[in-house]
Amino acid sequence: MDHLGYYAGKSVLITGGLGFIGSNLARRLADLDARVTLVDSLIPDYGGNLFNIAGYEDRLQLNIADVRDPYSMRALVKGHDVLFNLAGQVSHLDSMTDPFTDLEINTRSQLSILEACRYENPDIKVVYAGTRQQYGKPRYLPLDEDHLQAPTDVNGVNKLAGEWYHIVYHAAYGLRTASLRLTNTYGPRQLIRHNRQGFIGWFVRLAVEGKEIQLYGDGQQLRDLVYVDDVVDAFLRAGACEQANGQVYNVGGQAPISLLALAQLLIEVAGRGSLTLVPWPEARKKIDIGDVYSSSARIQSELGWQPATGLREGLASTVAYYARFLDRYL
Amino acid sequence: MDHLGYYAGKSVLITGGLGFIGSNLARRLADLDARVTLVDSLIPDYGGNLFNIAGYEDRLQLNIADVRDPYSMRALVKGHDVLFNLAGQVSHLDSMTDPFTDLEINTRSQLSILEACRYENPDIKVVYAGTRQQYGKPRYLPLDEDHLQAPTDVNGVNKLAGEWYHIVYHAAYGLRTASLRLTNTYGPRQLIRHNRQGFIGWFVRLAVEGKEIQLYGDGQQLRDLVYVDDVVDAFLRAGACEQANGQVYNVGGQAPISLLALAQLLIEVAGRGSLTLVPWPEARKKIDIGDVYSSSARIQSELGWQPATGLREGLASTVAYYARFLDRYL
Repeated sequence: MDHLGYYAGKSVLITGGLGFIGSNLARRLADLDARVTLVDSLIPDYGGNLFNIAGYEDRLQLNIADVRDPYSMRALVKGHDVLFNLAGQVSHLDSMTDPFTDLEINTRSQLSILEACRYENPDIKVVYAGTRQQYGKPRYLPLDEDHLQAPTDVNGVNKLAGEWYHIVYHAAYGLRTASLRLTNTYGPRQLIRHNRQGFIGWFVRLAVEGKEIQLYGDGQQLRDLVYVDDVVDAFLRAGACEQANGQVYNVGGQAPISLLALAQLLIEVAGRGSLTLVPWPEARKKIDIGDVYSSSARIQSELGWQPATGLREGLASTVAYYARFLDRYL
Repeated sequence: MDHLGYYAGKSVLITGGLGFIGSNLARRLADLDARVTLVDSLIPDYGGNLFNIAGYEDRLQLNIADVRDPYSMRALVKGHDVLFNLAGQVSHLDSMTDPFTDLEINTRSQLSILEACRYENPDIKVVYAGTRQQYGKPRYLPLDEDHLQAPTDVNGVNKLAGEWYHIVYHAAYGLRTASLRLTNTYGPRQLIRHNRQGFIGWFVRLAVEGKEIQLYGDGQQLRDLVYVDDVVDAFLRAGACEQANGQVYNVGGQAPISLLALAQLLIEVAGRGSLTLVPWPEARKKIDIGDVYSSSARIQSELGWQPATGLREGLASTVAYYARFLDRYL
């Protein structure tokens, strides 16, 4: 189907709409002539940033609200065709120091959003942002959707529960829901203020600032990465396709790459920065999960999606963006 | 190891201690000379029943409190050697009509109990009561612990999250935790007041009262059942064995049996009751998961447990109990 043409004139709600993926998705949807409303609470250090919609302020409706507020959400879900449900607490480290906040945002709020949809807008399509962290330490690679879910931190447990509410509400009430299990996503508009939301944004910042990137151990851990425009395309496909209803899909990268090779490529593309290997800190070693990367075979076969942006090209766009707008992200 | 001798002189806390499994476990522990404290909030219709500890009132400490109260739990976990963590909302139907209460009890409270243990009693052993409902509709039978977890109702999602907090707290903090994924448990002291907590207690009541047991469809759905004394033994083993730390185990029945054959056997054993087949109600059909039974191979091999009580023998004890004390359970 024409998953891009589908959105012309459609009314779309995005939770976490000022965040990294949400804002890139919002800009794309505005370009596709959708009527877009963003919900974001701009919690400091979570990733929401008003600058992320710079140039699009007149083409996007912004509603400041917290997904933990069930009354606001009940009002906000009304009248939309599609909900891209991206609001979340995404720091694994924070989920261990403050597990209840993570639970409230990633689990309880998902339940209240789904209850809101069930009662106020049962025809809405909902696409949830899951995470490959739900799988935990891989038993085999690449991870497919049939891999056991055995999360290794509170965030992984809470995201898993948040996703499965979506699947249950499809099975029990016919709500049209789908979940994308994202791997490491990178690109413009990502939070780079601190290093608690994954490594890639932080590496980009260090390179752009000409600083030293530290890798744990020998840096040979394999990861996959997806450029944000490709992730946006995956959401647009899942939102437009009826076949996705009740399904979960991995959204994985092209060939996996070692952190060492990635950092080297990043430094080369940026023309700045440096690299050093350091011993594993004990606390990080404990929750490390070794090599990890996902198979996108299911979403490729069912929704026609694959990652289109090469790593060098994606990193070049990312570095160029932050070189220009660094002060907006510090 | 001598998992029974282990408990002599040990201090044991049981959440949900006035409930079906909790009270049977408590009585057994008292007989093994453990010092036992029960925590229960006696929420109506959940299963807690003061009569469940009749004759043991002087040998068990009872503390009325709700596991949703983090301050009480923080005080209560102190000083114990083992926590059997059985408090839960167990009705799948109720979890769909009131998903937030289910979330609070089965998920959020588990997190707060584990936080309490982590800070107040990091050496405690914690054994959690999981459920085979976490697996959802079987992809293959018997269900083993490597089967995908794909719950079909909110209760299954919340129990899954509650279990995985236990596993995460083992991996991240070294807390000695284990989870038993229970199948249909039956026996004395089970709630039989209403039919929202699974079929077996309700069938027992109908038989004892000489009433009609209704089966949906052709009654050929296979299930496995475990007598409560056997489940108690599984908890005692998991609590005493270091090998169980960080592990999940199915606690399944002997040979699976069709609901029709089970009802016939029950009526024969009771010498009362009757049986009829009725068409599936639409709402129940939607969340039915077909045949389902578990493999206990892992717990048998690692902890030496297997179901010892034959179905006829277990049903006879159960029927005899309720024939005598029916009025205490209505």
